[in-house]
Amino acid sequence: MTDFGLTDTYVGVMKGVVAGINPEARVIDLCHDVAPQDVHGAAFLLACSFKYFPPGTVHVAVIDPTVGTRRRALCVQSGQYCFVGPDNGVVSIACYQAGRPKIFVLENEEYFLQERSRTFHGRDIFAPVAAHVSAGVPVESLGRRVRSMNRIRFEAPTVTRGKRLKGRIVHVDRFGNLITNIDGDCIRRTFPRADSGDLIITCGAHSIRGLSECYGDASRGLAVALFGSYSVLEIAVRDGNASSSLGVGRGDTVKIEASDTRTV
Amino acid sequence: MTDFGLTDTYVGVMKGVVAGINPEARVIDLCHDVAPQDVHGAAFLLACSFKYFPPGTVHVAVIDPTVGTRRRALCVQSGQYCFVGPDNGVVSIACYQAGRPKIFVLENEEYFLQERSRTFHGRDIFAPVAAHVSAGVPVESLGRRVRSMNRIRFEAPTVTRGKRLKGRIVHVDRFGNLITNIDGDCIRRTFPRADSGDLIITCGAHSIRGLSECYGDASRGLAVALFGSYSVLEIAVRDGNASSSLGVGRGDTVKIEASDTRTV
Amino acid sequence: MTDFGLTDTYVGVMKGVVAGINPEARVIDLCHDVAPQDVHGAAFLLACSFKYFPPGTVHVAVIDPTVGTRRRALCVQSGQYCFVGPDNGVVSIACYQAGRPKIFVLENEEYFLQERSRTFHGRDIFAPVAAHVSAGVPVESLGRRVRSMNRIRFEAPTVTRGKRLKGRIVHVDRFGNLITNIDGDCIRRTFPRADSGDLIITCGAHSIRGLSECYGDASRGLAVALFGSYSVLEIAVRDGNASSSLGVGRGDTVKIEASDTRTV
Repeated sequence: MTDFGLTDTYVGVMKGVVAGINPEARVIDLCHDVAPQDVHGAAFLLACSFKYFPPGTVHVAVIDPTVGTRRRALCVQSGQYCFVGPDNGVVSIACYQAGRPKIFVLENEEYFLQERSRTFHGRDIFAPVAAHVSAGVPVESLGRRVRSMNRIRFEAPTVTRGKRLKGRIVHVDRFGNLITNIDGDCIRRTFPRADSGDLIITCGAHSIRGLSECYGDASRGLAVALFGSYSVLEIAVRDGNASSSLGVGRGDTVKIEASDTRTV
Repeated sequence: MTDFGLTDTYVGVMKGVVAGINPEARVIDLCHDVAPQDVHGAAFLLACSFKYFPPGTVHVAVIDPTVGTRRRALCVQSGQYCFVGPDNGVVSIACYQAGRPKIFVLENEEYFLQERSRTFHGRDIFAPVAAHVSAGVPVESLGRRVRSMNRIRFEAPTVTRGKRLKGRIVHVDRFGNLITNIDGDCIRRTFPRADSGDLIITCGAHSIRGLSECYGDASRGLAVALFGSYSVLEIAVRDGNASSSLGVGRGDTVKIEASDTRTV
Repeated sequence: MTDFGLTDTYVGVMKGVVAGINPEARVIDLCHDVAPQDVHGAAFLLACSFKYFPPGTVHVAVIDPTVGTRRRALCVQSGQYCFVGPDNGVVSIACYQAGRPKIFVLENEEYFLQERSRTFHGRDIFAPVAAHVSAGVPVESLGRRVRSMNRIRFEAPTVTRGKRLKGRIVHVDRFGNLITNIDGDCIRRTFPRADSGDLIITCGAHSIRGLSECYGDASRGLAVALFGSYSVLEIAVRDGNASSSLGVGRGDTVKIEASDTRTV
């Protein structure tokens, strides 16, 4: 995963470097269209995605606005995975979800490219290190183990007066679906006696009554709220684009209340 | 092939699931930039492309606006290929071109992910089933065989009064080339005595006299009509973009007449 | 590398053809978003990228506006690589950097697809030839060896009166970074006694004093000049987009002078 996009050869070159070190490595693109320098967005997407990969996968995340400064480069072993990337939090959420992270600083230049730039560590450091790890180099040999790394923590939803749950849109996907930071546990804790049909979800100027099971439950062009593939509350428009229809995007607020609360 | 785009991790996650089930599977991206929910467009592209893949290829097409409803999920064995996708016609044109389809409904949950969403069957059902089939699971074990599936049929060109052939633009490619539904047989049947140089192809306000052999036959900026890589009539602008130059797009009409017809 | 983009199935189909001929071939996408027909841009990107791939790599570059005309198709063996593409210069810079090119014209139809279009040699000629070469077919069997190919030569920077070095932006990357044709040797030759902090780099209406080591050396939103991953002078804006901030793009001029020259 990078923010390099696919209009340059940066990603291709990283794969060339990997192929030179470990010809047997199978490289899978997770996403290269992370917005430039969007460390938070990438951390979220990686956290939602890493566990669908087989044990032993080395996840590489290069969203690295401070490349070439004194920021550290890491390889983190956690659970059944390794995570390689800069120490700016981009791998941190996934690392702490995967297990108990063992954190190593990338110091052993033997596993880097010999000629290195100060602007493209994806090619010069992260790709070669990941390739060596995938080929069996033990993480202990990459550098000294450290106790902590920079972490990103996601804002949790809050409960306001009158039992209103207030969360936020954390991602807008290709379809314009609005992915929130509100999970099912959070809703059940806040509204223990409410039926899912009694919840009123408000986003922008729009309110949706009740939770649906799938996009097709709504008529064309209507908004639905449901638990989507990210396992969190998601707002979608059947055969349409919720972000443009509702005029909302990442960072905007989503409120939930139970209809009985409202009418009281 | 999906309509998931490459700005999310959906495609990467599907490949992670495949790698976990069949590490030897070689996954090739056919296209992920199908317009959201454009089942017809995807069906056309798949039909034009599938036969360039080696025998034994499992083609997966996830353009699936009614995911999670009671729409069926299918694996179709036809000719030397398998096709996996929702029962909305997306694989149907290719299936009937490839051979005599044997249609199976995906019912055996043993070949799905254990935890399943109702919004992302690409990850939860189609990718794992395709991976199992690529690893040798017989299609018969996926579910019961059925006799029919939902089919998409493409509009054929029509012949109007005065021997005018009327077709339609069915795809606009990256270069702005206009791909039509008019094939060579259709032209030869309609104009059995016309020389290809005598045909007049009209699209929008623009007429082209004669068929060319390749893009380079025209001067820069001029429109040409030719039989392109899709084996159908295609209108292109040398070193330019026919769609924007001619102000036409998918769904627009293309007419052909023989010049002698016109002058009579 | 192609200019086919990823919104059609052209690239996927080429990979299908490769998989049918050499199932063991590992295909890596270098870049498919080269601007349509931009032979120069592609030649530059390939020249900057090819050497990061392992020896034995077959580089395929299909930017081919005159496909189907009498332009030749080539396989060039140079150094540790093979390069396959049309004879329009797209592979020429890389070929001459890689070693002493041995140039072969693709003539032996045994290594092409049997059915061929005149609009898509990527699928019908270049992909199958590259697959055969990757599977061990000797380049000598592809066709007759010739002595020359069409070459692209990049404009070199010029030194104007008063010791001003004048170069050009040759590429704008995804981040808006401005890649120039000015390398370090050129700067050292022109300003043998200048400290890198004394250089004044002018681009559009904007001047930057001194060279930086990495993007993070600047404050947010400020422009820096540095030697980037292309090993040439690059102008970037920290956490921003230099191309849009400075209002410049490919083809625009970049001037360098030493501050003492200016004040004299």
